Amino acid sequence: MLAFGAHPDDIEFGCGGVIAREALLGRVVRLVVCSRGEAGTNGTPAQRAREARRAASLFGATLEFAELGGDAHFEVRPGYAIRLAAIIRRVRPAVVLAPSVVPNQHPDHVALGRLVRDACRLARYGGLRELRRQQPHAVGQLFYYAVTAEAEPTDLGRVLVDLSAPGVVAAWRAAMEAHGSQLQTRNYVELQLTRARLHGLRAGLAQATPLFFADPLVVDSLAALGRAARRF
Amino acid sequence: MLAFGAHPDDIEFGCGGVIAREALLGRVVRLVVCSRGEAGTNGTPAQRAREARRAASLFGATLEFAELGGDAHFEVRPGYAIRLAAIIRRVRPAVVLAPSVVPNQHPDHVALGRLVRDACRLARYGGLRELRRQQPHAVGQLFYYAVTAEAEPTDLGRVLVDLSAPGVVAAWRAAMEAHGSQLQTRNYVELQLTRARLHGLRAGLAQATPLFFADPLVVDSLAALGRAARRF
Amino acid sequence: MLAFGAHPDDIEFGCGGVIAREALLGRVVRLVVCSRGEAGTNGTPAQRAREARRAASLFGATLEFAELGGDAHFEVRPGYAIRLAAIIRRVRPAVVLAPSVVPNQHPDHVALGRLVRDACRLARYGGLRELRRQQPHAVGQLFYYAVTAEAEPTDLGRVLVDLSAPGVVAAWRAAMEAHGSQLQTRNYVELQLTRARLHGLRAGLAQATPLFFADPLVVDSLAALGRAARRF
Amino acid sequence: MLAFGAHPDDIEFGCGGVIAREALLGRVVRLVVCSRGEAGTNGTPAQRAREARRAASLFGATLEFAELGGDAHFEVRPGYAIRLAAIIRRVRPAVVLAPSVVPNQHPDHVALGRLVRDACRLARYGGLRELRRQQPHAVGQLFYYAVTAEAEPTDLGRVLVDLSAPGVVAAWRAAMEAHGSQLQTRNYVELQLTRARLHGLRAGLAQATPLFFADPLVVDSLAALGRAARRF
Amino acid sequence: MLAFGAHPDDIEFGCGGVIAREALLGRVVRLVVCSRGEAGTNGTPAQRAREARRAASLFGATLEFAELGGDAHFEVRPGYAIRLAAIIRRVRPAVVLAPSVVPNQHPDHVALGRLVRDACRLARYGGLRELRRQQPHAVGQLFYYAVTAEAEPTDLGRVLVDLSAPGVVAAWRAAMEAHGSQLQTRNYVELQLTRARLHGLRAGLAQATPLFFADPLVVDSLAALGRAARRF
Amino acid sequence: MLAFGAHPDDIEFGCGGVIAREALLGRVVRLVVCSRGEAGTNGTPAQRAREARRAASLFGATLEFAELGGDAHFEVRPGYAIRLAAIIRRVRPAVVLAPSVVPNQHPDHVALGRLVRDACRLARYGGLRELRRQQPHAVGQLFYYAVTAEAEPTDLGRVLVDLSAPGVVAAWRAAMEAHGSQLQTRNYVELQLTRARLHGLRAGLAQATPLFFADPLVVDSLAALGRAARRF
Repeated sequence: MLAFGAHPDDIEFGCGGVIAREALLGRVVRLVVCSRGEAGTNGTPAQRAREARRAASLFGATLEFAELGGDAHFEVRPGYAIRLAAIIRRVRPAVVLAPSVVPNQHPDHVALGRLVRDACRLARYGGLRELRRQQPHAVGQLFYYAVTAEAEPTDLGRVLVDLSAPGVVAAWRAAMEAHGSQLQTRNYVELQLTRARLHGLRAGLAQATPLFFADPLVVDSLAALGRAARRF
Repeated sequence: MLAFGAHPDDIEFGCGGVIAREALLGRVVRLVVCSRGEAGTNGTPAQRAREARRAASLFGATLEFAELGGDAHFEVRPGYAIRLAAIIRRVRPAVVLAPSVVPNQHPDHVALGRLVRDACRLARYGGLRELRRQQPHAVGQLFYYAVTAEAEPTDLGRVLVDLSAPGVVAAWRAAMEAHGSQLQTRNYVELQLTRARLHGLRAGLAQATPLFFADPLVVDSLAALGRAARRF
Repeated sequence: MLAFGAHPDDIEFGCGGVIAREALLGRVVRLVVCSRGEAGTNGTPAQRAREARRAASLFGATLEFAELGGDAHFEVRPGYAIRLAAIIRRVRPAVVLAPSVVPNQHPDHVALGRLVRDACRLARYGGLRELRRQQPHAVGQLFYYAVTAEAEPTDLGRVLVDLSAPGVVAAWRAAMEAHGSQLQTRNYVELQLTRARLHGLRAGLAQATPLFFADPLVVDSLAALGRAARRF
Repeated sequence: MLAFGAHPDDIEFGCGGVIAREALLGRVVRLVVCSRGEAGTNGTPAQRAREARRAASLFGATLEFAELGGDAHFEVRPGYAIRLAAIIRRVRPAVVLAPSVVPNQHPDHVALGRLVRDACRLARYGGLRELRRQQPHAVGQLFYYAVTAEAEPTDLGRVLVDLSAPGVVAAWRAAMEAHGSQLQTRNYVELQLTRARLHGLRAGLAQATPLFFADPLVVDSLAALGRAARRF
Repeated sequence: MLAFGAHPDDIEFGCGGVIAREALLGRVVRLVVCSRGEAGTNGTPAQRAREARRAASLFGATLEFAELGGDAHFEVRPGYAIRLAAIIRRVRPAVVLAPSVVPNQHPDHVALGRLVRDACRLARYGGLRELRRQQPHAVGQLFYYAVTAEAEPTDLGRVLVDLSAPGVVAAWRAAMEAHGSQLQTRNYVELQLTRARLHGLRAGLAQATPLFFADPLVVDSLAALGRAARRF
Repeated sequence: MLAFGAHPDDIEFGCGGVIAREALLGRVVRLVVCSRGEAGTNGTPAQRAREARRAASLFGATLEFAELGGDAHFEVRPGYAIRLAAIIRRVRPAVVLAPSVVPNQHPDHVALGRLVRDACRLARYGGLRELRRQQPHAVGQLFYYAVTAEAEPTDLGRVLVDLSAPGVVAAWRAAMEAHGSQLQTRNYVELQLTRARLHGLRAGLAQATPLFFADPLVVDSLAALGRAARRF
């Protein structure tokens, strides 16, 4: 599983519960952070990179940084999409996570969501000269996460990942709290836990995180979606 | 699995491939047909009921008829929704299939989709006097199918059921052809197979049928959606 | 051409310019009014029926009344849709006009739009017992009109009918003014002319009325849409 | 202010914070409950009516019951809309609150939202024979509330009512807890407080409730929306 | 209040009525024009700048020019968004007006709307090196205006500003007419007055201009929206 | 008629049936291909350019290449839009075809659709210094085509072009097969013919291709849309 974040704390805040869940199940998780948060109000770039590394290590995930023009300077340019496609070809993930492209949020989130979407397509084409040395790769499914509730798309398919298993929320919380520089002025941890609680309550679960997808899920049979039987 | 159809052939034409797939996997499938097609251009009600029974038996599915006012006379009334909720409480399915509620199609299809949607909710409430003798039941997931391509919703989550396994399309075709009275003037079988072929081609499969859902899928982990890894 | 209106003045106010245009071109126009406006603030039913007849005669159109439960009491019931389908089978029009189904307007308008939509479908089916004596008929195209600007759909295809030809606007205005009982308290004539002027100005025309359609237009070639060449 | 609820607890759960806020500011609040919850899993009709009366009295609001076919049996019929219009003409409110019409929720909520929407229109027309004795009344603004998070419309204008003033949340909680029969099996109070907390956190407030509107707000100047200046 | 326009006449044509209204109420209004219309069919850049200055002075508003690549060359680039954020930090407005981002209009309008949207977000972040010397500022509310009727969003909240007060429309008309170079070939003044008349007629007002917003309005109580009581 | 494609085969695969139809009717067709497919998996740029030329000659259409940054590198930049506007001013077409802007497809297709949309607007403005030597031109109507079924917009007006006339599908198939380098690994020809068959079956035609439009069609009368009479 490969997750992209615009700023050092976006993955943890936006889909850290899912990361924690998958990591606890033993899935290999790789994080790519595309800035050092250098335009944020609090925290130096070095400090924020340290926080991101610590959060990743709490998940047992790898972390690398990518460069898309710098914090608050992301642009949807083919060169950047190809850069992300190169990472996708190297990592060769089945599942990719990226911030949603809902317009009314931080412009870097929108830009990154679009870039990852384009990168997933470009990773499949054989002739891109910048990627000549890498084998094309077809991502299985791209899921969008929402960094905040405003960023939850309302026109896409939605999967709710149950975070109720023991240890998941604790691991998620620890990863969020690793971003100490961001917790001085606003209660982001509470915001995210409240959001997960609300999604959970709606589905009869303790906590849950929604993910969103545009390309249809392909299944061998509906039995593959068997959890549905216990849904309400 | 419980599937509802407005007219004797709607289930076969709209989601017969899915029925065939699930039946071949050994899943118990129950069909409920809500009219005898008495307003159709071709076929008598008795003939059409026979055709529906024959199609169901080809699937190895059970079939029953329900009454919602008669062909071309379906109405979205609570009494009818409660009638369908009674069937749901009796059958107690994990998965329910119903025609989509996209407005621009046969009004009975829209009405039935709405009635089943309401019925799934009402099946859960304990105090309904008409259903007093039945235990409430929570359906796991309601999927909509599209009787024709026009009826495919564009604003809901989408699952693509692979029909490539041996025997699935043949079983589906046989079930459609059981509705001989409907095949005299238009080539509905070709229409549906063309539609399934197009959906399949888009996903690199031989044939596929899309299903649509409004309530989010709940999963224990993304591994539950593991087919995604082989998606393109 | 067959146009349906919920109240005696709806056709004139909502698409009277189009009616005037087509009538001046010699096309046979038939109007069906589905109440006598008996719940309106001004005008008696008898007076309003007279006004509608006079407006129709100014267009050179025929007029008949239909009954759908009475003013402010329209319901979307199959019996009513079938009643309208019977009119469609009798008149056998290529083009049908009905009020749009945008929710936030007079409930009768929404109901009538839905009823006509259903009626166009039902008019095609051979087995409806209520219509047994009439030959099925397939309407060429259903266009929605908007009784007021709020009722203009924003998610449907749009055709702009040019009202610039000599005499069209004058004929339209006369037909609106035939509804004298409705012009005592609000300036509906100005409202509609302002709306047509605004639509016209946007397209470089003197006046225009938009019509809306859900089913795609079918054309032999793009040359059939040749006016497009002079669009801007 | 006039608020409509489908079941005895819907107003309290869906917009009780707003009611509490307005009541504390001295505004006259009238509640209309359209069933006694007789189809619910818990609580007898008599018990639930008592709970509703107690909740209303905690707000200092009046309460009356209306009849729209019974719990789980609401229908969108003109007769019911006119019945609600009669209440509107009697109460003559500037602001009306009703449940949203988002389809994927309890069918009674959708039906009531539509009935109130229609009732607001019908309250203005002079000729309705059932309402002949009442002066027409034009509601200032209809706001929809969402009984649950699923019911929040995503395509309407949105106002966020700040619940941070002293006493508001406590009064709201007390009114919700008055519905003791509904709190035995699910934690609805926590669900609603979590929802209000999430909306609040997003806007930098302690708690907030969103309301939704379709007809544009009319203002004398933007200064009327002056709170905006302190928005983030 | 801070209003942005892409070309020298966009503010006057698109929301000049609102500017006139607010200015007449004594509110400080600042206009930022982001090109000199150098790609337009009529008028030299110098002439158009003069016209814009004259229009601003008629409003009693200040005017400055910004540079976003030149007329017909606007791009959505972070550098430009930051440039606009710098203006926002300097002016520190509660309300910002920008052209809507509806796609099917002049590309500069779309680009400017997006840039202002991003700028409002970036103005709040503390670490942007380009803005290091300016205190972060949180805009109260961003409203979009529509330069033409085509550009009116249909999926956002809507406020209708009443222009009926004495002098407002006259001041607006004068400001539009200050752009004499643009009035030689098309009747833009009539277009805008017709549009305002239509919006007004729909709400029972003489003239009105709609504004649109994505972020919810935050209010202390519904009384803050009290004009609603006189809405129809 | 002027058609734009991102890659050498996009026009043929996406709207080749329409091109074939119009060409067979004697209409002058000009194709503009905006890359040589140099990032594709199969085929060299030289080979692909040859294939495009051959396909164009089969249609009897002219072909030219334009440069928008290279395959997989298209960007929505004003300079590129102006470049396309220059072609539009030179060719002066009534009808323009461009790929749709539905987000979830190849990023070049989205970018080209946006660039052509902007170019159609910019072609009309008199003062663009890059285009100073060319007379402004107003395109009659811009139609979008969908390179694949995923790219079909669901929120725009839709025209279905009948491909049933003798020779049309054969000519289309030949033009697709001219792109031999692209047919080694996937059955694109079958995909497109299946899509056209499905659209045709839905409308009672042998084959059909949908085109999509945002700006309303302007007509002198509904008789201009006369084919509608034979629609079902």
